[in-house]
Amino acid sequence: MLSNRFQNGMETARLVWSRLPRSEEGDLDGVGLLSTTSNRNCVESLDYEVIENYAYREEQRGKLFVGYNVGMKWFFALLIGIGTGFAAVFINISVENFAGWKFSLTFKIIQKSYLAGCLIYILINLALVFSSVYIITQFAPAAAGSGIPEIKGYLNGIDIPGILLLRTLIGKIFGSIGSVGGGLALGKEGPLVHTGACIASLLGQGGSTKYHISSRWLQGFKSDRDRRDLVTCGCAAGVAAAFRAPVGGVLFALEEVTSWWRSQLMWRVFFTSAIVAVVVRAAMGWCKSGNCGHFGSGGFIIWDISGGQEDYSFEELLPMAVIGVIGGLLGALFNQLTIYVTRWRRNYLHKKGNRVKIYEACLISVITSVISFGLPLLRKCSPCPDSDPASEIECPRAPGMYGNYVNFYCSKEKEYNDLATIFFNTQDDAIRNLFSAKTIHEFSAQSLLAFLVMFYTLAVITFGTAVPAGQFVPGIMIGSTYGRLVGIFTVNHYKKLNIEEGTYALLGAASFLGGSMRMTVSLCVIMVEITNNLKLLPLIMLVLLISKAVGDAFNEGLYEEQARLRGIPLLESRPKYEMRKMTAKEACRNQKVLSLPRVVKVADVVSILQSNKHNGFPVIDHTRNGETLVIGLMLRSHLLVLLQSKIDFQHSPLPCDPRGGSQGIRHNFSEFAKPVSSKGISINDIHLSSDDLEMYIDLAPFLNPSPYVVPEDMSLTKVYNIFRQLGLRHIFVVPRASRMIGVITRKDLLIEEETDSTTMELQSTSV
Amino acid sequence: MLSNRFQNGMETARLVWSRLPRSEEGDLDGVGLLSTTSNRNCVESLDYEVIENYAYREEQRGKLFVGYNVGMKWFFALLIGIGTGFAAVFINISVENFAGWKFSLTFKIIQKSYLAGCLIYILINLALVFSSVYIITQFAPAAAGSGIPEIKGYLNGIDIPGILLLRTLIGKIFGSIGSVGGGLALGKEGPLVHTGACIASLLGQGGSTKYHISSRWLQGFKSDRDRRDLVTCGCAAGVAAAFRAPVGGVLFALEEVTSWWRSQLMWRVFFTSAIVAVVVRAAMGWCKSGNCGHFGSGGFIIWDISGGQEDYSFEELLPMAVIGVIGGLLGALFNQLTIYVTRWRRNYLHKKGNRVKIYEACLISVITSVISFGLPLLRKCSPCPDSDPASEIECPRAPGMYGNYVNFYCSKEKEYNDLATIFFNTQDDAIRNLFSAKTIHEFSAQSLLAFLVMFYTLAVITFGTAVPAGQFVPGIMIGSTYGRLVGIFTVNHYKKLNIEEGTYALLGAASFLGGSMRMTVSLCVIMVEITNNLKLLPLIMLVLLISKAVGDAFNEGLYEEQARLRGIPLLESRPKYEMRKMTAKEACRNQKVLSLPRVVKVADVVSILQSNKHNGFPVIDHTRNGETLVIGLMLRSHLLVLLQSKIDFQHSPLPCDPRGGSQGIRHNFSEFAKPVSSKGISINDIHLSSDDLEMYIDLAPFLNPSPYVVPEDMSLTKVYNIFRQLGLRHIFVVPRASRMIGVITRKDLLIEEETDSTTMELQSTSV
Repeated sequence: MLSNRFQNGMETARLVWSRLPRSEEGDLDGVGLLSTTSNRNCVESLDYEVIENYAYREEQRGKLFVGYNVGMKWFFALLIGIGTGFAAVFINISVENFAGWKFSLTFKIIQKSYLAGCLIYILINLALVFSSVYIITQFAPAAAGSGIPEIKGYLNGIDIPGILLLRTLIGKIFGSIGSVGGGLALGKEGPLVHTGACIASLLGQGGSTKYHISSRWLQGFKSDRDRRDLVTCGCAAGVAAAFRAPVGGVLFALEEVTSWWRSQLMWRVFFTSAIVAVVVRAAMGWCKSGNCGHFGSGGFIIWDISGGQEDYSFEELLPMAVIGVIGGLLGALFNQLTIYVTRWRRNYLHKKGNRVKIYEACLISVITSVISFGLPLLRKCSPCPDSDPASEIECPRAPGMYGNYVNFYCSKEKEYNDLATIFFNTQDDAIRNLFSAKTIHEFSAQSLLAFLVMFYTLAVITFGTAVPAGQFVPGIMIGSTYGRLVGIFTVNHYKKLNIEEGTYALLGAASFLGGSMRMTVSLCVIMVEITNNLKLLPLIMLVLLISKAVGDAFNEGLYEEQARLRGIPLLESRPKYEMRKMTAKEACRNQKVLSLPRVVKVADVVSILQSNKHNGFPVIDHTRNGETLVIGLMLRSHLLVLLQSKIDFQHSPLPCDPRGGSQGIRHNFSEFAKPVSSKGISINDIHLSSDDLEMYIDLAPFLNPSPYVVPEDMSLTKVYNIFRQLGLRHIFVVPRASRMIGVITRKDLLIEEETDSTTMELQSTSV
Repeated sequence: MLSNRFQNGMETARLVWSRLPRSEEGDLDGVGLLSTTSNRNCVESLDYEVIENYAYREEQRGKLFVGYNVGMKWFFALLIGIGTGFAAVFINISVENFAGWKFSLTFKIIQKSYLAGCLIYILINLALVFSSVYIITQFAPAAAGSGIPEIKGYLNGIDIPGILLLRTLIGKIFGSIGSVGGGLALGKEGPLVHTGACIASLLGQGGSTKYHISSRWLQGFKSDRDRRDLVTCGCAAGVAAAFRAPVGGVLFALEEVTSWWRSQLMWRVFFTSAIVAVVVRAAMGWCKSGNCGHFGSGGFIIWDISGGQEDYSFEELLPMAVIGVIGGLLGALFNQLTIYVTRWRRNYLHKKGNRVKIYEACLISVITSVISFGLPLLRKCSPCPDSDPASEIECPRAPGMYGNYVNFYCSKEKEYNDLATIFFNTQDDAIRNLFSAKTIHEFSAQSLLAFLVMFYTLAVITFGTAVPAGQFVPGIMIGSTYGRLVGIFTVNHYKKLNIEEGTYALLGAASFLGGSMRMTVSLCVIMVEITNNLKLLPLIMLVLLISKAVGDAFNEGLYEEQARLRGIPLLESRPKYEMRKMTAKEACRNQKVLSLPRVVKVADVVSILQSNKHNGFPVIDHTRNGETLVIGLMLRSHLLVLLQSKIDFQHSPLPCDPRGGSQGIRHNFSEFAKPVSSKGISINDIHLSSDDLEMYIDLAPFLNPSPYVVPEDMSLTKVYNIFRQLGLRHIFVVPRASRMIGVITRKDLLIEEETDSTTMELQSTSV
């Protein structure tokens, strides 16, 4: 609500929507939406509704089939968990090895010449980033960005072409290895969520049809509804793998991504996450014995701060609240700046083609390398603190190792460069250093401030380049930097208290993510799981609540804003305030309803399909008394299947008997299944002879006989709630009923098993 | 689905339902349901639907009002958090002080005479349990049991009279102090959930109307819908307070209790939980300085096992899976046995009145005391292990302190009684001892087995007595006992591995709760939060998945079974398989629809209301053409308000003009608000003169003009999903529409802010 009230400041952003051409037609198809990548110029709604036509009813093969189906769903959950776990391990091993090799080579060379080291560093980064942007622009354009807004859109009911293809998966995996290994200010966590979703979707369709590696027996889940469940599992698996946070994964899928939820799914999602946790743990155990090169336990972000501050005093609540406010402000600013950057890229830069995208990414890579190498050079080294024999932290750290106190361009032996410790390092290591306890005054305020400004700028300009890019790790970097800054001031102010700057860095990270992404419960659990410290939970909650509230005063969450910019029309969980005063009739006042008769001439179908882009057509029949009757909804995609197969064409304009047994139904349900993330057949692909055009089709067996209806004067808030909570694509608006058949209450829905088993027995004996 | 397939074994349990008298009428009211307590003989559905009548539309006072409303909701979330936190602290301090005083007195006396000590122990327990059962039977019968099935029912849409009253709250708080302090085999966590819900509901209605302590300005939330949100917050607050598990509380509310969810609510629930965590922490900090008597940090269950086993080898997965299976079997058995016990109590024992309930509870108290005191006496003492100077665990423990190695009836100085260590102790301490690390071989297998059998039996027979009783802590006791048993065998078998029996005890606890309550994510998070060890998360997940799957093969979860026994007709999240083949028309085939005309004679209203127990009546009007038209739904409760106030009676049978301004609407929306958990007015309470009976009422301004409708041939699964997911009470079944007004798709629901702000400006200028 707060967000609702303050969104008026965002009118400019909303103008993008209203400027879009809005067709008067029934569905989203006609809306030519601008978007970042060229192939993403059209979105379509998904059919989550079960089309209860005769083919579907035939398909209902009794309880055994249902049991088989459930078993398959669990098997798929297992496969998704294993697949996503392995993908995450592969990405992590690759990134760690590239980055580790890069840093150890650079450190070796700078022993002799800093200039040569800098050049080598820049060139390796450039090569890695180039590989990433080349893959994305030439092979898998849908794999650019984090992918979370697209997946969020998918689970909200919008199909964005290309986001769940095999090539997108490949592009995502190899692209994020290049972009993360190349040291850009982005993370691999968002792309892993997308990777998980792709794996889930590809498993659900039994492989990729385009590359002929699909297996027939895996193709149990052809409907959008089943796929949605799988993609939800994949999403949770991605988060679980990225952060080694299984509970956080479940909650992320629940809070941020899905619009629709049921408790059976929750259990399956939970199972998938648990499998991921086991797979990742097994792989890490195997790698610990040195089988994976540079990859140690560092690849998966676990910033264990269990050695740090475990308690807090009430005086500390004030600086912590300050962190929350800063997080809200900087997070909202980040969202706003990324909107501008994305819009500028879309309207201006990326229109010039793929070559510009490659130049752009390479330029940003060079800038990032120069800054991260050069800025620490300008910083004077600090002397190592008086070494505490009990402390295990070495100063300066041994060359080529991970750890605090990096000796970089320091003249003396016992010195370290605090800026290089965070800047000239992998992001994972930098965060570990920022979170580290027992290192009070390791970083000077000037270094942290310089790093904050530079990295924030880099994160903003990197956002939206044509590489896979997550915002989690950059967010944690930014947040932990200003968190540690506040920590420094707090330590100086409350000298008597046992305060660890690392704890403040953690709270800062939570606050920035909260201020930018506006998640609460899932972010809180993820932060707790990655830091492995439960005692700070109430503080993280507090900071998140403040930063989300502050951020909501300015704009919407990062993913919502990005989804809007990419032309993904998300239905938010709350209907707009204005809808309370509107009725269903008003919402569709400009529509001309195009309906089909029950038995329709093929030529008429073709002309109707060609004349508009509606995706659903009401079918209207006449009773014997001459009254008209809306008998159901016919989907465009099903009509196209009928036109293509031609076997249901008939010569007579009289209806066939739909209950006349199997000869009436020549299709099985799976023929109506929609391919994943591809356009399906178009009316222009279908060639019909003039004889065909003179024939008729009886639509009765194929239509959805019971679409959802609302009376014309229902308020639009109610309609919105039905639409979103049931995940619909079409709702029929009809006049008030002329009579009542009955009223269904809770009692009518409480069916006992016995009575039914008796009726079922009766039925089976009568058949 | 698995559970669906195997539920046929449960036909006997389902028979209870079908044997209930089922009226042919519209709502649940006519169904006289048997139940445990005498006052709970009738349940009613809740009105979660927004009744968009003219009074409601008048009430919509623009965005400022919405903002105020949102602010109030957050303020209430704060109050609920503080209230529940303080209630939990009060209960914990009281229980800890009673129990601590009891044990220290007994230990003092047994230095002289074991017989006298036993008698004192039995008498103190008896007195505490008697106080509890007396309060429950005489003052607050609805406070018996855990209350979770009732709250689950409430949030599913069923109002059980009395569960949210002030007297129930008082009974719950003082009753659970007595029953838990009295050493019965039950916990205080379930009752705390109910306590949180009561506090939320009472705050929502601004105090108790019966006891005249309501404040007018707090009464912002009169609708069932707002109350549902508050009760959800209260529920989460209860769990958060009971286990000091704020995230677990949110997830418990989400997974187990609610049937309906939206993400704004999630944030508010999260806030409430965070407040509880802060309040509880503050109170415990205050208590640590010795202000609360015996109450230390022990009162809130935090069984920190961070010193224990942190890693696991793959060989251990087998014994862990065994724990999962045992948990599933014992959990399902527990559910089954409690069904028998509850049914026996209901049909036989508790029919004899309150006196029998008091006798029963007292008898169980004496049995529990005798067994927990007597059984350890029969057990030979064990010699203390060779003391490790590094270990801080003393053996035997100092008298009167908490800890392991209790010296009880031991002849030698350096001996301890392992059975007394768990049995003759508060349950919190016993669990801490069972979970404790570095105490291998403290407990002998015989002692654990004896304890398991005795405690399991006690937990079963205690279940269903007329005292507030939670099943969490007994479940953890049972589970950790057999978990530790398996741990003993594993330690002996894999001697090389670093295995802690305490870790197995923890897994056992998780498995039993999973096998009985069938929660997954929330239980997992709660277990992690109370043991403060994140590293065991994947193992807890694994064990929970196995035990839930095993348990589901036999029966439903504890709360579902108990809700069924108590006559709470929950709508499960998945429709029954048989519904796929049924249509809406078939579901209401036996109904005689009773409808009202738009302008209705008062005498007719009275006779219709007296002749049946429907709660909603379709209102049918005639157009000028003579066609009939269903214009809306009139609730019984609203009709009664109209009849009681009489100000809308009119002499003429002609309709008034509903749009004729405010003189037509003489009621404001709050007059239609329903009181919480009380019966409201009945038709028999309303006295009308014969003049009144001759008058008319125009129902148009008061009816719900847009109830949800489904076409007659929609399959019942779809109807079920609408009904449950939207939280409805009535759905109108109507014939197929004769014509279409339009089709609403996603595009029609994406309203831009600009156009609306323009229209709003136009509206405001024209007004």
